[in-house]
Amino acid sequence: VSSDAPRTVTLIPGDGIGPEISKSVQQIFQAANVTINWEPVDVTPVKSPDGKFRIPLKAIESVTKNRIGLKGPLATPVGKGHQSLNLALRKQFNLFANVRPCKTLEGYQTPFTNVDLVTVRENTEGEYSGIEHTIVPGVVQSIKLITQHASLRVCEYAFLYAKQHKREKVTVVHKANIMRLSDGLFLRSAREVAEKYPEIKFEEMYLDTVCLKMVQDPTQFDCLVMPNLYGDILSDLCAGLIGGLGLTPSGNIGEGGAAIFEAVHGTAPDIAGQDKANPTALLLSSVMMLRHLHMFDKANLIEKACFDTIKDGKMLTGDLGGKAKCSEYTAEICQRIKDSS
Amino acid sequence: VSSDAPRTVTLIPGDGIGPEISKSVQQIFQAANVTINWEPVDVTPVKSPDGKFRIPLKAIESVTKNRIGLKGPLATPVGKGHQSLNLALRKQFNLFANVRPCKTLEGYQTPFTNVDLVTVRENTEGEYSGIEHTIVPGVVQSIKLITQHASLRVCEYAFLYAKQHKREKVTVVHKANIMRLSDGLFLRSAREVAEKYPEIKFEEMYLDTVCLKMVQDPTQFDCLVMPNLYGDILSDLCAGLIGGLGLTPSGNIGEGGAAIFEAVHGTAPDIAGQDKANPTALLLSSVMMLRHLHMFDKANLIEKACFDTIKDGKMLTGDLGGKAKCSEYTAEICQRIKDSS
Ligand SMILES: CC(C)[C@H](C(=O)O)[C@@H](O)C(=O)O
Ligand SMILES: CC(C)[C@H](C(=O)O)[C@@H](O)C(=O)O
Repeated sequence: VSSDAPRTVTLIPGDGIGPEISKSVQQIFQAANVTINWEPVDVTPVKSPDGKFRIPLKAIESVTKNRIGLKGPLATPVGKGHQSLNLALRKQFNLFANVRPCKTLEGYQTPFTNVDLVTVRENTEGEYSGIEHTIVPGVVQSIKLITQHASLRVCEYAFLYAKQHKREKVTVVHKANIMRLSDGLFLRSAREVAEKYPEIKFEEMYLDTVCLKMVQDPTQFDCLVMPNLYGDILSDLCAGLIGGLGLTPSGNIGEGGAAIFEAVHGTAPDIAGQDKANPTALLLSSVMMLRHLHMFDKANLIEKACFDTIKDGKMLTGDLGGKAKCSEYTAEICQRIKDSS
Repeated sequence: VSSDAPRTVTLIPGDGIGPEISKSVQQIFQAANVTINWEPVDVTPVKSPDGKFRIPLKAIESVTKNRIGLKGPLATPVGKGHQSLNLALRKQFNLFANVRPCKTLEGYQTPFTNVDLVTVRENTEGEYSGIEHTIVPGVVQSIKLITQHASLRVCEYAFLYAKQHKREKVTVVHKANIMRLSDGLFLRSAREVAEKYPEIKFEEMYLDTVCLKMVQDPTQFDCLVMPNLYGDILSDLCAGLIGGLGLTPSGNIGEGGAAIFEAVHGTAPDIAGQDKANPTALLLSSVMMLRHLHMFDKANLIEKACFDTIKDGKMLTGDLGGKAKCSEYTAEICQRIKDSS
């Protein structure tokens, strides 16, 4: 494969509104003449011979081969035995860093302005280890697992990301005053990496303090790195500051450059199939993906058309207070791309 | 002791600005003719014969005898061996529920209005178990311990509190989608208690979703109950919504009615001893204490004088954007009490 050949991207449309918003992204990519091939796969778990449900081999092979994916929302199968599919994918491909930029969208009003930060969340261990025991009935322990390897790896990524994206400060978020050993290890790892980046300001802050300051003045934060659960919480909090999960992109970065970009909102079954969904989160995730593939011009082109449409405010979907259909919002973005290219 | 005899309250003035704000509260109580006796104690750890530092016996005896305390901020001794004194006190007296009301203060502007909620935090176990191990160098586990006993106990308290304070809804905050066993046990305990309170609405919500919704519209929440760490985070987040830890009271409720009310802000060593501190958090904590002692009239009298002073806005301390000294703010509240009684 020559380096000029179009890149193939695994597309996981997902459930509920997933197919609609995936179609929207594909249309916008076409309008922008992005030269990638989509390889759509279904990740609905299938029953293996051993009776367990597993992600279909075809989907795994696709991501393994392409090393890059775009993913819509997935419904979590009901029932105790099933692990969240989102988590299964993160684990399967060792996607160790979850990156969620949060930037105020001009034209969409919230009490907060000029938010521009990014959370980098450890994505493989911590409180998500899955190790739990019932010691005796009524007494349960869950194990938070912190390793130096994973802590250093995600901190390295956070600093590298900060450097590449011209961010000035990295804040490590922790509760090492309480979890001295585990969060202590994460904190020391962050300090160790920070030393290699003297040009980037380094700050340490307790999680509770970060939450308090975040709602008072989010502009004081820039890039934040933290263990798994803290990232789950903070990334949602930050999304709330700028308008919710329908507007915020996300990327899961793995070893050796494999990555899956995803919308982290729900499947919205109540409006699925009605051309009412907002494709923004998936579209901005695909913009992150383009940057990850170093297709900066296309990324900027699409991002600007999306931002301008929201700023203009005439063609917004229902969740943003507008009346436009998903297809109309999509068409508006496509038109803006054509007008400016 | 007759039931008319004045109640004795253990006073832990604390460090830094602690003594100033404690004096302020004492003066205000005097102005309101509150008939309690203060028993001031020092909790600075002393070296035991075994070489360990411990809370002085005199302090422990005082709280044990009085079963009620008011506490200013405590400096955490530096050094690895020391446990946070705040935590040591919660443990020593089995203060199982940490209650933090958060109510918009008229006159103090934040982007959020009409906030009126209360977080009830499990205060004895969870992520604060203190059980951690280094398995091999670079691999650490921290144990989150959830018991049915402590979960039921704090949920019972939350519903009882909601009922007594005429709150309409209790939201249990959890991540049982991830920590199925531990948060699952907490969640089931909440459900079990909820059944006994059919008149109170019961809601279940993931922690990340709560954080997102909280910054979008905090007025949708009423009373929230949750495991230890989640309470640490959410209570600070909520405090941030209404103006910070300088304005929010807190109570630690133990078995059999023992309770310590405390300001949860820091010791502010930079302004200590300069008559610049804001006593509001400790004062509102003492108002909670009065209600706990069923001294409702005195509680309302003092609370109103405090709220009116803030609403009036002419006599505010520096942290609230004013120029008043701690003593001037205190005198203003005392004057209002005298004028209205
Ligand atoms: C769906 C859920 C398992 C997931 C998580 O807890 O990580 C979600 O909240 C997220 O942040 O992607
Ligand atoms: C001081 C610290 C140990 C404490 C905690 O983590 O509980 C504080 O944040 C609190 O909320 O009272």
